[in-house]
Amino acid sequence: MKFELQATDIQSKARAGIITTDHGTIQTPIFMPVGTVGTVKAVHQRELEQDIKAQIILGNTYHLYLRPKLDIIEKAGGLHKFNGWSRSILTDSGGYQVYSLAANRKIKEEGVIFQSHIDGSKHLFTPENVMDIQRTIGADIIMAFDECPPYPCEYQYAKNSMELTHRWLRRCCERFDSTEGKYGYSQTLFPIIQGSTFKDLRVQSAETIASFEREGNAIGGLSVGEPVEEMYAMTELVCDILPKDKPRYLMGVGTPANILEAITLGVDMFDCVMPTRNARNGMIFTSQGILNMKNEKWKDDLSPLDPTIGGYVSTFYSKAYLRHLIVSGELLGGQIASIQNLTFYLWLVRQAREHILAGDYRTWKDYMVKQVMQRL
Amino acid sequence: MKFELQATDIQSKARAGIITTDHGTIQTPIFMPVGTVGTVKAVHQRELEQDIKAQIILGNTYHLYLRPKLDIIEKAGGLHKFNGWSRSILTDSGGYQVYSLAANRKIKEEGVIFQSHIDGSKHLFTPENVMDIQRTIGADIIMAFDECPPYPCEYQYAKNSMELTHRWLRRCCERFDSTEGKYGYSQTLFPIIQGSTFKDLRVQSAETIASFEREGNAIGGLSVGEPVEEMYAMTELVCDILPKDKPRYLMGVGTPANILEAITLGVDMFDCVMPTRNARNGMIFTSQGILNMKNEKWKDDLSPLDPTIGGYVSTFYSKAYLRHLIVSGELLGGQIASIQNLTFYLWLVRQAREHILAGDYRTWKDYMVKQVMQRL
Repeated sequence: MKFELQATDIQSKARAGIITTDHGTIQTPIFMPVGTVGTVKAVHQRELEQDIKAQIILGNTYHLYLRPKLDIIEKAGGLHKFNGWSRSILTDSGGYQVYSLAANRKIKEEGVIFQSHIDGSKHLFTPENVMDIQRTIGADIIMAFDECPPYPCEYQYAKNSMELTHRWLRRCCERFDSTEGKYGYSQTLFPIIQGSTFKDLRVQSAETIASFEREGNAIGGLSVGEPVEEMYAMTELVCDILPKDKPRYLMGVGTPANILEAITLGVDMFDCVMPTRNARNGMIFTSQGILNMKNEKWKDDLSPLDPTIGGYVSTFYSKAYLRHLIVSGELLGGQIASIQNLTFYLWLVRQAREHILAGDYRTWKDYMVKQVMQRL
Repeated sequence: MKFELQATDIQSKARAGIITTDHGTIQTPIFMPVGTVGTVKAVHQRELEQDIKAQIILGNTYHLYLRPKLDIIEKAGGLHKFNGWSRSILTDSGGYQVYSLAANRKIKEEGVIFQSHIDGSKHLFTPENVMDIQRTIGADIIMAFDECPPYPCEYQYAKNSMELTHRWLRRCCERFDSTEGKYGYSQTLFPIIQGSTFKDLRVQSAETIASFEREGNAIGGLSVGEPVEEMYAMTELVCDILPKDKPRYLMGVGTPANILEAITLGVDMFDCVMPTRNARNGMIFTSQGILNMKNEKWKDDLSPLDPTIGGYVSTFYSKAYLRHLIVSGELLGGQIASIQNLTFYLWLVRQAREHILAGDYRTWKDYMVKQVMQRL
């Protein structure tokens, strides 16, 4: 993986860059649609590429390990071949899912023993086997195995958890560096900063993670219920410590406003289920603001969803038609809304990038945050 | 509407023709995907046109009348404008849905009083207002308001019901012929033959319906639970009575075999929810046979779904990937399966048409029925 830092905004810490993997280039700042089990929910791969213009999508180790299982992904020649997505993929390590989804999890120094949420079967994730699993899944960017503490949590819990994550990171790196990709292209490993909302822990974690000198770094354990000011404060703190010449990934964030603000603080990469999950509930993000499609006011609004952002659904379908589909519980409603929201998220980060390159990001951002977050 | 009969098979009564409406040409025999509330479930309009190659889709009067309601469809300029489907549309009259979905229905000479299955509100459908409603929806082909008797039913019930349908047809024609389309293109009205599985009633109904000399004729009240031999017998009986120079539509039919057999008897048009409904349950129709995607045997079959029939999903996605999506309950699974099944149905009728034109339909059909109905 290569990262070229192209520009830094004069008025803020916002950055524009290019990540290059063996599956193509990624222009940052970038939003990565979440494809948990190898599918971005309700969206065809062709739509991701041509309409949404996604450059990289996420997969999840925990989910893919349980279904369809590794033997099938390996037989296909990796996740790209299995699901037909030929651009870059990043896999989350499964650390978060083990805590949020699995039953009867038990954290030990060795790793985590847990039961599948699907069939109750018992499994062990260790830093070593999670590296092996992600080698087999074949993502371009793989994530270290970490413990994500809940919010709020006691200082001592956060400290112990962070130290465990750091010890696990050493084991992740040793295993990753002593193995090779299985499919002829290169993979890279991103470590994850933890430390809850404690400044000294976040500083310590950022310094430790930076010292590993990997090709990119991630900020975990945020957007888990803490006040948004805390999230921004922790993000700014660690961005100032992380090396400038490597991409920074803020995991699980967020709303359009969260993304624009975190870009201001120096973040390059984002992922979040919000655009697809909220879509299925009838919440539409557009360049003009947020629409609740269940609202009566859209029932006879025959104007297109969001004609300025490009893409098929944003120009082809009207608000009234989408409202009809969502109110009627029709599958196409969720499909249209998911594509609209992801098209908007990718449009938003492309716009952000253009304004960083043009040197007026901060001014544009202050205006745009208000516009895209207003309820229409 | 125009119908040109192009060829009749030498070995059977199969026909090839062209229907022309103000929204384009329809090459027969044709299968019409069902878009009950103005959407073919889980399928984008672009996919219907470009991948599935649908030439005409269905809408449903009962459903569209209740949601989104007529005022919105009229404000849009008709259903074509509302849902963005620019080719032909046929609307079923709602007669069948009033009996199968609505609560507390009461059939009178005037019409049917029923309660909405959505909110319990009371409504009256009459032959006259159902014509008016379909004028407002704006389908190219609209259906007469009929009563569809259940199967099995007593001879006297079937006879009374058929006679009511005939009296209603006269009122439908009077209303239709004294009104005009609302959107500047022409509409046509198809009457519906009833008579359950009683030969003398079917003969009487076919003769009555033919005497109205409308531009096309439909066969209703079949595929409602009767043995398949009865369905074919009734279809053959009425096709032999109906005029040769007008298209014949067998409503609600059916499996690939049903369609190929009914084409042999002289049917030109079909619709059925089977390809989309069964898709969502994991049943896939292909040119090689029927696949239950929940079956373990497909879990590592990385071959494409059905590469010979054309279209995006049939060549792009593998059986193993589709199985993974369906077993995991992922929305994309139902989407892929729906497109595959509809692409196959449209491929099948295109193939049928080519063989009718080539003069070897009967031979091809006997082979194809076995192939497409085998369980793989």
